[in-house]
Amino acid sequence: MTAVGAAAPRGWLAQGVAAGIKGDGRLDVAAFVTESPAAAAAVFTTNLVRAAPVSISEAHLSDPSARAVVVSSGNANAATGAGGVEVARAMCDAAAAAVGCDPSDVLIAQTGLIGVPLDRDAAVAGAAAAASTATREGGTSAAAAMLTTDTTAKTAEEHVDDGGVGYTVGGTAKGAAMLAPSMATMLAVVTTDASATAPVLEAALLAAMQTSFHAIVVDGSRSTNDTVFLLANGASGGATIDSPAHPGYTPLAAAVESVCCSLARQMIDDAEGATRRMRVTVSGARDDADARKGARAVVTSLLVKCSLAGADPYWGRVLSELGASGMAFDPADASIAYGGHVVCAGGTASTHDTSAVAAHMAGAEVEIGAVVGAGPGTATMWGCDLTHAYVDENMGTS
Amino acid sequence: MTAVGAAAPRGWLAQGVAAGIKGDGRLDVAAFVTESPAAAAAVFTTNLVRAAPVSISEAHLSDPSARAVVVSSGNANAATGAGGVEVARAMCDAAAAAVGCDPSDVLIAQTGLIGVPLDRDAAVAGAAAAASTATREGGTSAAAAMLTTDTTAKTAEEHVDDGGVGYTVGGTAKGAAMLAPSMATMLAVVTTDASATAPVLEAALLAAMQTSFHAIVVDGSRSTNDTVFLLANGASGGATIDSPAHPGYTPLAAAVESVCCSLARQMIDDAEGATRRMRVTVSGARDDADARKGARAVVTSLLVKCSLAGADPYWGRVLSELGASGMAFDPADASIAYGGHVVCAGGTASTHDTSAVAAHMAGAEVEIGAVVGAGPGTATMWGCDLTHAYVDENMGTS
Repeated sequence: MTAVGAAAPRGWLAQGVAAGIKGDGRLDVAAFVTESPAAAAAVFTTNLVRAAPVSISEAHLSDPSARAVVVSSGNANAATGAGGVEVARAMCDAAAAAVGCDPSDVLIAQTGLIGVPLDRDAAVAGAAAAASTATREGGTSAAAAMLTTDTTAKTAEEHVDDGGVGYTVGGTAKGAAMLAPSMATMLAVVTTDASATAPVLEAALLAAMQTSFHAIVVDGSRSTNDTVFLLANGASGGATIDSPAHPGYTPLAAAVESVCCSLARQMIDDAEGATRRMRVTVSGARDDADARKGARAVVTSLLVKCSLAGADPYWGRVLSELGASGMAFDPADASIAYGGHVVCAGGTASTHDTSAVAAHMAGAEVEIGAVVGAGPGTATMWGCDLTHAYVDENMGTS
Repeated sequence: MTAVGAAAPRGWLAQGVAAGIKGDGRLDVAAFVTESPAAAAAVFTTNLVRAAPVSISEAHLSDPSARAVVVSSGNANAATGAGGVEVARAMCDAAAAAVGCDPSDVLIAQTGLIGVPLDRDAAVAGAAAAASTATREGGTSAAAAMLTTDTTAKTAEEHVDDGGVGYTVGGTAKGAAMLAPSMATMLAVVTTDASATAPVLEAALLAAMQTSFHAIVVDGSRSTNDTVFLLANGASGGATIDSPAHPGYTPLAAAVESVCCSLARQMIDDAEGATRRMRVTVSGARDDADARKGARAVVTSLLVKCSLAGADPYWGRVLSELGASGMAFDPADASIAYGGHVVCAGGTASTHDTSAVAAHMAGAEVEIGAVVGAGPGTATMWGCDLTHAYVDENMGTS
């Protein structure tokens, strides 16, 4: 497939260029352009320290219609003051001029070093070049231009047969791996040629976040730049999905969730220094929110992450993190299983097949299941191990 | 000084013995005994998963008078069910028989592996042996018997001249370094020969916690066993301090805080794999609680810890963690300094003496100061760097 990721749906073009922001000749500015205006929704970081592109994109979404998304890597343009805001705005202006739209119809996301002024000339020229040369085949270079310490490009596509011509949801992302040495910025651009209103896109995106980007943890840090965009240009010619009650909503939301989950999984697999993935499911909690607290505490725990690196099924750490998570439960009712093998029942050690557990721990994905009571609440979160390579990658800026 | 730590005040005896819990011949059961009954107060872990000794000690404190404290290391006796509770109770019984007191006048704390049954015979014999052989000179062996992956024993003493004969506050602790591979259990026994009521001891202990044990973070994990005891036997013969309004309260509270802070500092310096300490002060916050949120986020951050290992003054990470901490502030008002050198002002980079900052970063203690506004709130927290050695120490149980 030559049309990949966010450039896979009809009417979507993309390009990645080397503008000189990274300083080593790698691709560092991407543009995603739609031939016709798209409805747009976004989720931004909740960090009080918000990078310049976050403020600009939020302002541009006061009218939820867009023609292009610009993404640059190598410099987060965060904690860069009024100068940083001006550069981000100038990048939107340049892309708008290239595409032939209003600057307010351009969205922007950036990732990289915090607190370092961004080279205005390079960034603006890059935005103009990427937007003016975007093509159906540019999805690969655009995906590469978003990367920082990621080792692989991250794209996903999902086709939906809606009984008519069908449509595609496509996505491109950069991972929760950190730029040496920035925060765990995650950026994703998800597009579709379905027709949907902005409120519908927002509903689908918020729902998808819970099981995808909100369900992964590398190091628990929230960045100054985290951004996920969802845009629909209607190029498929299908009916406009204008409410969550519309019959087209459920398959659209499912496709968006599928693409987001694929991108999130790719982020975990490419997390800095990670050699093993964990899938933690907490069930039997009072409610889903409580289960999420418990699952998040386990995947975030340094001790559990170190155990995972050592392939050690040390359930005592899992139980202890659940106990400190703020989730309400009675430890005496808790059971914990690795790969389906129960190692703790009723809050204490349980006899189990140690060689089967050892074999499971040695694999690429460890599944930790905790049943904490008889409630209806359940949640699954994804994490990875902590290794020397993570420490090395984050010890310095150079 | 032969009478050290919690055995330094008059009337306090201690002993550490090798009972075989650790399995390698190291000391693993300590007893602290007072010749006359002591008033007692305690702070326990807030983890829902509470080790057996936590439940037993809490129950024994329903009458806040004590004659002995038993501490064992190598096995946390957590997630060990009713059997674990029975072993902890039998250890108290054995110590009580040795001392000649009611079992409810014995307190107990344990640290080590979670979820592994504790050898009853070894543990009970150890408690009896330590309690029956406690002497004025046993403070050193008792301190050693509390250690897990700690590399050094932790003791502190503070003399108070109350105008009379004076009194001593002494403490012995095991660190926030983790037992391979248990949680970051911290245990501390603080004693004095001052005379004070249990409510007064509780007030002094809770106040001291804020600037000592609650102000240090190694990896953010709260253990199943965390316990701090404060006991006063009145052997100095001074007047009983019976209220926080008593003129003797302030010097007693200050001495308790001083001992707790010394022990806490020793824990940070001996944290697993740590090579550098950080002292993070947030000021100008809305209130102290808000400042603590910010300071805690910084010392807990994996990214900041990695920067510290690399001696990298990457203030962008500090600012970003403050922004995600839940503390209310305007990032545009924030300034950040390393060793007093301001590197970020008004939320963006500030010119500074880079060689002076580099020299500061290379030292054993890095001081990070963040001023986040004009409010009265301030807090200081202590942390350490994250290194390969931490990962190695926590990868496996063996």
